Amino acid sequence: MSHIYPADFASAAQQIVNAGQFLNSQGLAPATSGNYSMRLADGTLALTVSGRHKGRLVANDVMQATPDGAALDGKKPSAETALHAQLYKLYPQANAVLHAHSTSGVILTRLRKGDTITLAGYEMLKAFPGITTHETSLSIPVVDNAQDMDVLMAAIAPRLTLGLPAYLIRDHGFYVWAPTMPQAEYMSEALEHLLKCEVELEKISPRSAA
Amino acid sequence: MSHIYPADFASAAQQIVNAGQFLNSQGLAPATSGNYSMRLADGTLALTVSGRHKGRLVANDVMQATPDGAALDGKKPSAETALHAQLYKLYPQANAVLHAHSTSGVILTRLRKGDTITLAGYEMLKAFPGITTHETSLSIPVVDNAQDMDVLMAAIAPRLTLGLPAYLIRDHGFYVWAPTMPQAEYMSEALEHLLKCEVELEKISPRSAA
Amino acid sequence: MSHIYPADFASAAQQIVNAGQFLNSQGLAPATSGNYSMRLADGTLALTVSGRHKGRLVANDVMQATPDGAALDGKKPSAETALHAQLYKLYPQANAVLHAHSTSGVILTRLRKGDTITLAGYEMLKAFPGITTHETSLSIPVVDNAQDMDVLMAAIAPRLTLGLPAYLIRDHGFYVWAPTMPQAEYMSEALEHLLKCEVELEKISPRSAA
Amino acid sequence: MSHIYPADFASAAQQIVNAGQFLNSQGLAPATSGNYSMRLADGTLALTVSGRHKGRLVANDVMQATPDGAALDGKKPSAETALHAQLYKLYPQANAVLHAHSTSGVILTRLRKGDTITLAGYEMLKAFPGITTHETSLSIPVVDNAQDMDVLMAAIAPRLTLGLPAYLIRDHGFYVWAPTMPQAEYMSEALEHLLKCEVELEKISPRSAA
Repeated sequence: MSHIYPADFASAAQQIVNAGQFLNSQGLAPATSGNYSMRLADGTLALTVSGRHKGRLVANDVMQATPDGAALDGKKPSAETALHAQLYKLYPQANAVLHAHSTSGVILTRLRKGDTITLAGYEMLKAFPGITTHETSLSIPVVDNAQDMDVLMAAIAPRLTLGLPAYLIRDHGFYVWAPTMPQAEYMSEALEHLLKCEVELEKISPRSAA
Repeated sequence: MSHIYPADFASAAQQIVNAGQFLNSQGLAPATSGNYSMRLADGTLALTVSGRHKGRLVANDVMQATPDGAALDGKKPSAETALHAQLYKLYPQANAVLHAHSTSGVILTRLRKGDTITLAGYEMLKAFPGITTHETSLSIPVVDNAQDMDVLMAAIAPRLTLGLPAYLIRDHGFYVWAPTMPQAEYMSEALEHLLKCEVELEKISPRSAA
Repeated sequence: MSHIYPADFASAAQQIVNAGQFLNSQGLAPATSGNYSMRLADGTLALTVSGRHKGRLVANDVMQATPDGAALDGKKPSAETALHAQLYKLYPQANAVLHAHSTSGVILTRLRKGDTITLAGYEMLKAFPGITTHETSLSIPVVDNAQDMDVLMAAIAPRLTLGLPAYLIRDHGFYVWAPTMPQAEYMSEALEHLLKCEVELEKISPRSAA
Repeated sequence: MSHIYPADFASAAQQIVNAGQFLNSQGLAPATSGNYSMRLADGTLALTVSGRHKGRLVANDVMQATPDGAALDGKKPSAETALHAQLYKLYPQANAVLHAHSTSGVILTRLRKGDTITLAGYEMLKAFPGITTHETSLSIPVVDNAQDMDVLMAAIAPRLTLGLPAYLIRDHGFYVWAPTMPQAEYMSEALEHLLKCEVELEKISPRSAA
């Protein structure tokens, strides 16, 4: 397999560049939105720097940081670096984290005021780890948006249950995490597909949506 | 013609790789969803292995199996292989089968609780074999989703009438089959176009949808 | 200018191949739908043959025919060839005709039962010849679909007024014509944009649509 | 940085060609719509000439003009050149202006009859200069469309407040301006994303839209 645990920073940087092209092709990277990371074998992180268009990344737009998100190479991390670090600490099996501004996620969290989006009965749920049947539901936590990362971290911390694959920030987007970058990419695509189905069903008949 | 009955496994594998790129470009292959196959001249099957992204297939992601779907080369078939085998047995003229997770198919089967989606009056119906006029209707069977392939096979078996080109699995996607892979690709594209028209009409006026 | 009146069949064939790639990229060429043509300097026609995917055309998929649409090279013209010939006879300035299966056109003609789709007040109307302001309306004739080309020709003939750039066939798609192929491509794109605006407005508030 | 203040006309022309490919890939350049410009170091302007498809621009489709928009090279400027010149005079920090026919912008300004579109509470608002939190709103001026550029300039002039990044022309599209072309591209993408969110929310529940 060519996609497991990146051996070094250069490999992780290339996987992050590729992820940007993929998410951008899916409409998940408008303007300079989003930030992506990987955990290296030595525990340090490779992260996108602040302010780049994710569909136009080059390897030099990826920086290296400590497990807490402090820069190791003088580059400027994005503000959301702390959220990546939080996820890596809580989910030892996660080696890739993707944060994307999802159009469907923004619409759905703006429309539904609750603190959870529940996706139920879809075959596509099997794209998430540990789910082997459509006869289930996946409850994705939704936290209100905040510019203060400490506020966001405190809001999401109690919701980050074992095995959870993703969460949503209202009016903003989603985070997904996975053992490998391709898995994180596929989960992003699956989540957007499911959120879009919910948005489409809301347009026709809210009662049909889960 | 370059697309008829594949002479050998290598040709079939390449056609399957190409079909993945095509369906992915149409939004019909999110995450690792879908599986594709061809019937070879000797009756064996070429099938996608389990768990790959269909827009990123390489020839090595295609395996060879007996007409019953048993692996001939030690690779791991996807769970749905039995559904492919079922179709090849019932439809002797079919040499290509495509299963895709259609966004419009999921939305429509979730919205309409019946066991059939009827497409009527569309010129695009002529993309399906034996249809030469828009003044007709095509009733696509819908079966409830199941993780047990025997349950799915038993549910769809009585619905697989002579000349039928496709069926839908609720909350999941569709199967199409055709004499050649390009024909199966075109029928997938046509079916998605028609399902999308129905979804769009549902948004405006359910009475306008067939 | 490289796009005016094609000097020869080979140039016209290449322009038709390019038009297929363009319309396909716009979602206007699902399955093997659509047919395209150009008028050559000697009055003969270059036309797509029957049954090809328009996003995958090669020059050999283009045939040459008399002004009446009779094959000059033994290839099989599509059934709609007569509709192309009709337009070239009525519109001497037209050298390119594009027929595409428009998703928005199908939805709108299915929803609105009248014999005209009126597009009013849009800046994009200036993409059509002779229109220099948004303060106008363009009434596109709609004829009911028919498999008998004589029926279709008879239905549309009285509606083909001087300066008309396009018409719609209900549940089917549109025809556009222009002096050059790029102009026909741009008019196809503009028409689809406008039809889509109308469909979107219908979803929210039918009274907002023209 | 490779994208700041263009040193010469050739560099600006290439950036304009690239911007056309980008906006076209986003569905923001149907037919020959839109026009783009940059301000050069000597104060002259590089502008798209009239009537070209912006996804197919070549460097020769870009002309040079005085700060007032008078041609310096005999090429024909588009009618909207005066609107570009107006923006460069009022916004000294602007070196790139993009005008695009936004589908969502047309739909929204047609639907909402007021003279402002207000975007509130979105994280994506941070794509606009001076906005550092989602807890704000951005009021984009809307002016009625007009073919007389003097009428349009007079209508928009009193609305062009300090720091404003964009305005909308009803039934037509938007203008955005920024210090560099990539920033103008990102703001176009962000604005379209936000306008699309508003259109989608209008389809479900007008009260959910800001």
